[in-house]
Amino acid sequence: MLELYGFCVSNYYNMVKLALLEKGVPFQEVSFYGSQAPEVVAISPRGKVPVLKTERGFISETSVILEYIEQTQQGKALLPSDPYERAQILALCREIELYIELPARACYAEAFFGMSVADAVKEKAKAELLLGFASLGRHGKFSPYVAGDSLSIADLYFLYSVSPALQVGKKLFDIDLLAELPAAQALMERLGQNPHVQRIAADRDAGMPEFLAKVAAKK
Amino acid sequence: MLELYGFCVSNYYNMVKLALLEKGVPFQEVSFYGSQAPEVVAISPRGKVPVLKTERGFISETSVILEYIEQTQQGKALLPSDPYERAQILALCREIELYIELPARACYAEAFFGMSVADAVKEKAKAELLLGFASLGRHGKFSPYVAGDSLSIADLYFLYSVSPALQVGKKLFDIDLLAELPAAQALMERLGQNPHVQRIAADRDAGMPEFLAKVAAKK
Repeated sequence: MLELYGFCVSNYYNMVKLALLEKGVPFQEVSFYGSQAPEVVAISPRGKVPVLKTERGFISETSVILEYIEQTQQGKALLPSDPYERAQILALCREIELYIELPARACYAEAFFGMSVADAVKEKAKAELLLGFASLGRHGKFSPYVAGDSLSIADLYFLYSVSPALQVGKKLFDIDLLAELPAAQALMERLGQNPHVQRIAADRDAGMPEFLAKVAAKK
Repeated sequence: MLELYGFCVSNYYNMVKLALLEKGVPFQEVSFYGSQAPEVVAISPRGKVPVLKTERGFISETSVILEYIEQTQQGKALLPSDPYERAQILALCREIELYIELPARACYAEAFFGMSVADAVKEKAKAELLLGFASLGRHGKFSPYVAGDSLSIADLYFLYSVSPALQVGKKLFDIDLLAELPAAQALMERLGQNPHVQRIAADRDAGMPEFLAKVAAKK
């Protein structure tokens, strides 16, 4: 059985968890925190979460894990088989990751963990976030899902990367990054009603105290 | 025929160009610079380069373009068909992009274009680059190619993302980021002897004055 290594506060972890739940693939969760400890980097080369344990070994990087699951597991398709349509969805995923998740992530320490982030880093992140959301508005369909009429991997990125980016926008820059994308706002609400998404949110809330204790210990 | 939009100084453009040349896929190059101009973002949602024009429309994001080419075009395979081996190579690509290319890119303005980058940004980039190269050393095989005995997409990332990162390391931080990876150094030299790589380098050198003029005009 596939084993998903990570912790349930991680938004990347939750993308993979939602993919497995939506497809109905059996899996076990293994509590695993990222770090540079030798036992961690032996499993995950850059010490990041999540990692997927397969019969043949570990697979790192969320985007790769999601494609691997799609390629090897039964269940509801989260990527179309047509190469051009598939490419459009994967491009949306990359655009959300590179141009929304990553600039937002540079500000997580201040937005979520009471630390402070250098002004130069925040200014760069804000400019990138504005461009990233403009790009999402151009490329996303939101009819009603990010890439069209069915749930795809792009929705996993949308749900779990755009949500924290929205909080960064609000807390640090006092802007609503989805203000001009009402269909995207509606999708976010719709996804929040999905029972698997609600289960993942409950697991996240349950895991939050342990996670915050780890963050506090590192400060 | 496929059309590759971009400019020959772009390292991401050159990854795709090398993939097409190595596979022997016919293609046309179309000079195209990234920006936020309406005619640019109509083709490339985030205004980035490269973009691939297919019979059905444009595909953005290098990682997606490379997979699309692999999936739809004949010629030498740059990804294995086995899903687990494929995942290992794709994970190496992501690790090079996220943990080497991106931190290095945050410093390009100072390393290559005579501008200055904030100290906070440089310090963050340096710390990430050190971790990124350590990760590459753990996950890469370099036997002799990045992922094993044949050229793969991971070598395209290695060649075109690691090279500028090495220059950033040397110019800004006075460190040789490959010092502890002699097999990776040897691979970089070996790749430099590939005739397609040499052709791309000649095209890059020929395109450099036009590119530098554009950068200067933006300052």
